[in-house]
Amino acid sequence: MARLRSITPGYYRIELPEPLSDSTHGTITHFELITVRLVDADGREGVGYTYTVGRNGAAVASVLAEIAEIAAGEEANDVERLWHRLWWALHYGGRGGATVFAISAFDIALWDLKAVRADLPLWRLLGGYDARVPVYAGGIDLDLPLDALLRQTDGNLAKGFRAIKMKVGRPRLHEDAERVKAMRAHLGPDIPLMADANMRWSVDEAIRAARAFRDADLTWLEEPTIPDDPAGHARIVREGGVPIAAGENLRSLWEFKLYIAGGGVTFPEPDVTNCGGVTPFMKIAHLAEAFNLPVTSHGAHDVTVHLLAACPNRSYLEAHGFGLDRYIAEPLRIEEGVAVAPERPGHGIAFDWRGLEALRE
Amino acid sequence: MARLRSITPGYYRIELPEPLSDSTHGTITHFELITVRLVDADGREGVGYTYTVGRNGAAVASVLAEIAEIAAGEEANDVERLWHRLWWALHYGGRGGATVFAISAFDIALWDLKAVRADLPLWRLLGGYDARVPVYAGGIDLDLPLDALLRQTDGNLAKGFRAIKMKVGRPRLHEDAERVKAMRAHLGPDIPLMADANMRWSVDEAIRAARAFRDADLTWLEEPTIPDDPAGHARIVREGGVPIAAGENLRSLWEFKLYIAGGGVTFPEPDVTNCGGVTPFMKIAHLAEAFNLPVTSHGAHDVTVHLLAACPNRSYLEAHGFGLDRYIAEPLRIEEGVAVAPERPGHGIAFDWRGLEALRE
Repeated sequence: MARLRSITPGYYRIELPEPLSDSTHGTITHFELITVRLVDADGREGVGYTYTVGRNGAAVASVLAEIAEIAAGEEANDVERLWHRLWWALHYGGRGGATVFAISAFDIALWDLKAVRADLPLWRLLGGYDARVPVYAGGIDLDLPLDALLRQTDGNLAKGFRAIKMKVGRPRLHEDAERVKAMRAHLGPDIPLMADANMRWSVDEAIRAARAFRDADLTWLEEPTIPDDPAGHARIVREGGVPIAAGENLRSLWEFKLYIAGGGVTFPEPDVTNCGGVTPFMKIAHLAEAFNLPVTSHGAHDVTVHLLAACPNRSYLEAHGFGLDRYIAEPLRIEEGVAVAPERPGHGIAFDWRGLEALRE
Repeated sequence: MARLRSITPGYYRIELPEPLSDSTHGTITHFELITVRLVDADGREGVGYTYTVGRNGAAVASVLAEIAEIAAGEEANDVERLWHRLWWALHYGGRGGATVFAISAFDIALWDLKAVRADLPLWRLLGGYDARVPVYAGGIDLDLPLDALLRQTDGNLAKGFRAIKMKVGRPRLHEDAERVKAMRAHLGPDIPLMADANMRWSVDEAIRAARAFRDADLTWLEEPTIPDDPAGHARIVREGGVPIAAGENLRSLWEFKLYIAGGGVTFPEPDVTNCGGVTPFMKIAHLAEAFNLPVTSHGAHDVTVHLLAACPNRSYLEAHGFGLDRYIAEPLRIEEGVAVAPERPGHGIAFDWRGLEALRE
C-alpha cells in the first residue's frame, strides 16, 4: 500500500529563448510550469506537471494546493477512486479550466509513483505495445519568413525528425497555400507534413483552406476552428477532403466522445497535461481505437511517449521544445523519425529542481 | 467614453448559518464570494461577483487579478470586444473552470457600469420586458427529514413564494418518490413544484425517476445526470415524460447550443456568475427564445432578476439564500410569487464592503 505522505506543488515561470507566435495565442514570451511531487509512506516519489502558455498558471497552482489538502493521506494506488473524488470535490468552479490542468498534473504523478513502485517504465505498466513511437517536430512558426521556416525545418531533419508540422492561419489564405506548397516541395514526397491553424477559421474558411492545401498531401490539418463546435468539425471532415486533428483544447473524455462519435475528428489529439491526466488520456486513446481512429498527442512529449508506446493505435507523437529540456536530466531521444520510450521506472523524468528554484513564482 | 481606471478583485469566505446538502456536493459549510469593483475615468463604479460552493475560489481570484492586468485602461463600454479579448487571452488554461467564473464577474461589473452611466436599471438597458418575474424558492434540503422539509416549505410560502423546488437523489428512489408525493399533497394542485437531482443519476435511472414522479405534476426535473452528456439528456427528455431543466454546470453559449439544438433541455438554466456573465446569458436566453423554450436561472438572483425581466421567454427566477443577503443593502423583494427588478441604476446591489472586510481571504 502507498498512502500519500506529502503532496508538494511548485509553480515556475520559464522564459523562452525567443518569442513564439501562432494564429490565436499571439506572441508567447514564456511558459508557466506547474509541478506536483508526491511522496508515499515508503518514501517512494512520483512527479507530475502541467503548463500554460503564460496565463492561468497561478490558478492551476492554487487548485493543486486544494488537491494536496483533499488527497492527503489517501491510497496512491487507487487512481480511479482519487480521480473521481477530486473531479467531484472540485466540480463547481472546476469541470475544465485550471482545475482540470491541476488534476492532470496530480494524476500524472500518481501514475509515475505507481510505475516506480512496480519497477516498470510507465509504458509497460500501461499495457506495453512498442517503445518506438513515430514523432514529428511541431514548429510554432506562423510569423517566420519562408526561408527561415525552411531553415528551421532543415534543422529539425538534422535532429532526426522525419515528419514536420507547420503553422497556418495567416491573414490571407494564399500566403498559407504558398507556404504549404513550398514546404512540400522542400520536403519531397516522402516526409509526412501536417498543418496547424490554432482555431483560426470559421467552418467554411476551414473547408476552403483544406481544399487549397489538397495537393500538399497533408497527413492532417489541425484545429481548423474553435473547440466548441463538434458539428462544424464534422462538416470540415466531410467536405474538406483532408484528415482533421483536434483535441488540445478539449478537457474531458466526454468532450472527446462528442468529437469521436460525432465524426468531427480523424486524429484525436489529447494533451495529458490538460485532458485530466494519464487516466482519461488512455480512455480517449481506447475510445479512438474502438472507432478505428489513430491517436496523436499535444505537448509534454516526455510523459506522452509512454502513453502512445502503450497503444496499438498510436500515431505520431508531437515533440516541441518549450524550453523545458534545459531542466530535465535525460531529454527524449529522437532517432530516424522515432522517439524511444525510456526503460527507467515511472516516466523517468528527472527535473533539475535546483535549477528551477530560481524561476519559482 | 469610460476608460477603466481601476479594477479591484476581492475574495471572501462566507460561512453558512447551517450546513446544506445535496446529492452531489455533499455537505456545504461555506460559500466563497469573489467580487470585482470597477472605476472608470469619470469616477463611475460597476460591481460584479461570482461564487463557489467552497472550492476553486482562490483560482477565480487569481484569474481576476490577471483580468485586471489585461483590461487596465480599456474602454468599459465595449463589452463584446473586452469579453472576446479576455476569452482568447485566457483560453489556454481557461475555456471553462475558474477562468469563466472570473470573466463572468468582470462582465457583470461592465454591464453594471454601463447601466449606471446610462442612468437605467439593468433590466431596462438590456431590453425591458417586465420587471415582475415569477420566482421560486430553491431549497437545498436533500437530508432534511420530511416534516422539516414541509416546515421549510411553509416558511417559504409565508415569505411570499408561490413555487417551490426540492432536492431529490436520495439513495433509494422510493424515498424520493414518497417525498415528492408528500410535497405535492402538502402544496395542493396549484403551486408549481420542481425537483433537482444535482447530476446524481445515470440516464436510465433518471428516466425511471421521471416516470416515478409523473403524478406529482412537476414543472421540471433538474440536472438528472452529468452535464457532459447532451445525448443522454435528450433521451431523458424524450422518454421520461417530464420537462428537464439544466445548465448551472454549462460554461458557454456553445455548450448551451449543444443542449438546446440537440433537444436535451426544456428549461435552459444559465447562471450569470459562471456562464461567462451577462453577455452570454442574454445570448443563451435569446437562443432559447428562437427554439421556443422558456429560460430559467441559477444563483445570483439579485443580478439575474434583471436579465429575466428583459426576456419575453423568461420563466421562473431561482431564489436561494446563500447567506449573501446579510451583506447587501436592499435584498430582492418577493411579493405573491413574484420578484421585482429594482428601478435603481445598474443592478442596484450595494455590498456592505466594511462588513465583508472581516471575511477576506
